[in-house]
Amino acid sequence: MSEQQPLMPHLRAPDTKAKISVARCTDYWYVACASKSLGKKPLAVTILGIPMVIFRASDGQAGALLDRCPHRNVPLSMGSVAGPHLRCAYHGWEFDTAGQCQHIPGLKGECQSKGRAAQAFPVREQQGYVWVYTNSETQPDVEPFDIPLYGDSRYTMVHQLVEARGTMHATIENALDVPHTSFLHKGLFRGTGKRNDIDVVVRRWSDRVEAQYIGEPRPEGLAARIASPGGGEVEHYDRFFMPSVAQVEYKIGDDSHILISSMCTPVSDFYTKLFTTISFRFAKVPGWLVRPLLDPVGRLIFRQDAKMLEKQTKLIEQFGGEQFVSTEIDVLGPEIWRLMKAGERGDAKPNDAEPVEKRVRMNV
Amino acid sequence: MSEQQPLMPHLRAPDTKAKISVARCTDYWYVACASKSLGKKPLAVTILGIPMVIFRASDGQAGALLDRCPHRNVPLSMGSVAGPHLRCAYHGWEFDTAGQCQHIPGLKGECQSKGRAAQAFPVREQQGYVWVYTNSETQPDVEPFDIPLYGDSRYTMVHQLVEARGTMHATIENALDVPHTSFLHKGLFRGTGKRNDIDVVVRRWSDRVEAQYIGEPRPEGLAARIASPGGGEVEHYDRFFMPSVAQVEYKIGDDSHILISSMCTPVSDFYTKLFTTISFRFAKVPGWLVRPLLDPVGRLIFRQDAKMLEKQTKLIEQFGGEQFVSTEIDVLGPEIWRLMKAGERGDAKPNDAEPVEKRVRMNV
Amino acid sequence: MSEQQPLMPHLRAPDTKAKISVARCTDYWYVACASKSLGKKPLAVTILGIPMVIFRASDGQAGALLDRCPHRNVPLSMGSVAGPHLRCAYHGWEFDTAGQCQHIPGLKGECQSKGRAAQAFPVREQQGYVWVYTNSETQPDVEPFDIPLYGDSRYTMVHQLVEARGTMHATIENALDVPHTSFLHKGLFRGTGKRNDIDVVVRRWSDRVEAQYIGEPRPEGLAARIASPGGGEVEHYDRFFMPSVAQVEYKIGDDSHILISSMCTPVSDFYTKLFTTISFRFAKVPGWLVRPLLDPVGRLIFRQDAKMLEKQTKLIEQFGGEQFVSTEIDVLGPEIWRLMKAGERGDAKPNDAEPVEKRVRMNV
Repeated sequence: MSEQQPLMPHLRAPDTKAKISVARCTDYWYVACASKSLGKKPLAVTILGIPMVIFRASDGQAGALLDRCPHRNVPLSMGSVAGPHLRCAYHGWEFDTAGQCQHIPGLKGECQSKGRAAQAFPVREQQGYVWVYTNSETQPDVEPFDIPLYGDSRYTMVHQLVEARGTMHATIENALDVPHTSFLHKGLFRGTGKRNDIDVVVRRWSDRVEAQYIGEPRPEGLAARIASPGGGEVEHYDRFFMPSVAQVEYKIGDDSHILISSMCTPVSDFYTKLFTTISFRFAKVPGWLVRPLLDPVGRLIFRQDAKMLEKQTKLIEQFGGEQFVSTEIDVLGPEIWRLMKAGERGDAKPNDAEPVEKRVRMNV
Repeated sequence: MSEQQPLMPHLRAPDTKAKISVARCTDYWYVACASKSLGKKPLAVTILGIPMVIFRASDGQAGALLDRCPHRNVPLSMGSVAGPHLRCAYHGWEFDTAGQCQHIPGLKGECQSKGRAAQAFPVREQQGYVWVYTNSETQPDVEPFDIPLYGDSRYTMVHQLVEARGTMHATIENALDVPHTSFLHKGLFRGTGKRNDIDVVVRRWSDRVEAQYIGEPRPEGLAARIASPGGGEVEHYDRFFMPSVAQVEYKIGDDSHILISSMCTPVSDFYTKLFTTISFRFAKVPGWLVRPLLDPVGRLIFRQDAKMLEKQTKLIEQFGGEQFVSTEIDVLGPEIWRLMKAGERGDAKPNDAEPVEKRVRMNV
Repeated sequence: MSEQQPLMPHLRAPDTKAKISVARCTDYWYVACASKSLGKKPLAVTILGIPMVIFRASDGQAGALLDRCPHRNVPLSMGSVAGPHLRCAYHGWEFDTAGQCQHIPGLKGECQSKGRAAQAFPVREQQGYVWVYTNSETQPDVEPFDIPLYGDSRYTMVHQLVEARGTMHATIENALDVPHTSFLHKGLFRGTGKRNDIDVVVRRWSDRVEAQYIGEPRPEGLAARIASPGGGEVEHYDRFFMPSVAQVEYKIGDDSHILISSMCTPVSDFYTKLFTTISFRFAKVPGWLVRPLLDPVGRLIFRQDAKMLEKQTKLIEQFGGEQFVSTEIDVLGPEIWRLMKAGERGDAKPNDAEPVEKRVRMNV
């Protein structure tokens, strides 16, 4: 039972430290929107706290500009697309996808000048998503995350967009955390029956980390029953790819396979979007039968997580910082954080080194 | 008539000083909740800005922990009581009333360790209230306030919980302030007829202060008529006990007696709860007749006060500080403040010294 | 299309500078309210972020006090007028229009003292408005703005009060900006037909600035058709008077004349009220016919401006500052800002010097 919150909680508990798991990895690609949501109207999005306007020029190319007219600082997303340009709603200034000012109504002289340009961000459109690189001052030397199995005709694909009121770190740790599934999602994800000891192999690369679960019987929960009604040997991997992709893979037997890739977008320090693509095929059940069940069950699970993330976030904000303690079964959270911090410093580049392995025993 | 508030009042009036009557007296007991409101569900409360979870273990004992799971910082008050433990809703960690971690689902090894403990606050349950000591790092050398007449069979008892949007100091000064009763509560508390000169004797101890009103005729207002329909000689005391108890006592004639003890809880700097216990007996009127009137009349008076406190608080917040001026008829406010400031420094311990007296004349 | 705003946008775009066009010109008169809105109840207003209470004493004179009782800091605007005094609602303290404390209920001795006075601001009531001088510590050496044509029997007069969520500078620049009228108000104010080259003469004095538009044909928009259904030669001036008056004057032919004077009040840094008086006479149309049209058309135009100002303001707040770039056709905005900054320093006094002129060509 929860009481009404105090209106002005000025005091803090004495032992709070100001650490917060926010890493601002700017030199990376993030999903700005799904391709199909970008029509004739410009779209306002925020990534890493930066307000951006995404628009599709008349040649079909997507552009991403800082959502602020250089003239009088109104949001360019209030404007409209005019052929190859985005036009501001206030005085009608026009900008191309490179941010160059191309027209100023009323002005007799030349309109182009450096000070009149809108800040432009690199854009890629691929696999149904518009990706934006959040450092406008450098050209990216990598490409956006390539979603495995995307468009593979043997698989059924489902797309989902959800939003979490939490840091990107907390959101991704939650998405890849096994222990809470047995508890928070009891009956839905894992069963209520007896727990089993399993082995977890954690493999760390310079820009990603993976946990492989060995000896896991098919879970008894509803979601698992849909995935594999016939039971069977389970192969289970949870993966994190810098800076923002959470991936869960299940293989059960030879023919049942599900791959869930969540491309996260850090809207701001405490607000994260998850653009999720699920590819699956099941031995005994046709995709068209599973598909309509997958979305509501996925959303039900996510709602429980989202509520937890929101309460966690508000409490951390109230304390002015977080104070986490981890155990050995928090296998991925601390690793993800280590990678994110490295990425923020520019130190999480891919390399050819073999992964470092460690092994943990868990009872789930 | 009030205009719409400006949305961003950045400027301040030139003469504002930043003083605010907020004393944070941490080494004291405060009421967390009424005993009867603590059932099977844990209860979230905030005292001095510290979020706490209060729960009743299976043996009936109440516990008070910092409302933050040491693992991933979600509120423990989202969880549930599991036998002698409070169980977190996220990963199922369990804590006893001493804050010790007693179970971590999935973990193979030992779960207890210092870093995994939840911060625990001393608790007492007495006279229908659960009290919490707000310094978790020391053992209290005093006990909570003992409510006089509590359970005395000659008296009828009424309990009330109200909330004020004001500092504890402003709230208590208001509760014990006589001059505003003649004005703000005109007709309700005191009459509208002619005023009288009375003497006030103020007695100051090291940890409390009392004002005795001498020569006061029975007030003519509605509340007073209920208290003593027959009129008579009035004995009236207003008292403050460190750090948080406001007490008003009226005796009219030999047999009418009312004692109002308000145990205040500083939820946060500008938000105060008042747990009030009223004990009364009247010469001519049976308690069961007065009782149903007392609550609505008390709430009506309090609503007027609460509105005033709220407007005062918002204005002080807008100015970034308060600037009070007192006159000699503000007999208790400045004394209460002096005690609270001493208490914040640890300098308001009880001692055996005789009280210091002063005498003021007032026209009420 | 606009997305939901992020809840905590912590990050800022990299190139933001913290400049904001807020000038706090304190040694000036501003309109507090229209005379007719000040009845028996005191009125709470805010100017330059300073909460004030305006009241009309029994002799008809208006007073302006800091809206905070010196005793316990509740808003005096909660109180009531008692003869020549304003009476606080909490303890009944009474103040005259000079701020002097004249009565304290219950107090036996003298009530007047310096510390018990409420801060009083100089007041003038003229031409239907109550003006307040926002520096309470000096006597003003100038008088409020005198509205030309006020009460001239040859003219019809209309009054309007609107509010903008923007700085006073942005609001006034908008009110006097010609280029946006061709774009934002397309079809309403100016026509949609072909544009014309016109000359603009800008004249700068020490305390005001004027733009004269030469060669402008009668606009084709709706508002213009109302103003002058028969067409004709246009004389058009936009003027700014320190610190807060925006004035637009149109003469068409010999007999059509409209003068719009907007007395702005900086409620707070990002919130501005516009008290507008419009005086007009038209050659062919009687005033009583135009009058009912003028108000809705004016409000329609203003709604478009107000939405723009609000979005602009919120974006500037989100960035923590503005970053404007101007072109030569932004003829008045930068001049108004230069005057406001001088006025903030006390350097925008009127003098007898001839104005400095410059000439710009514009296509509208």
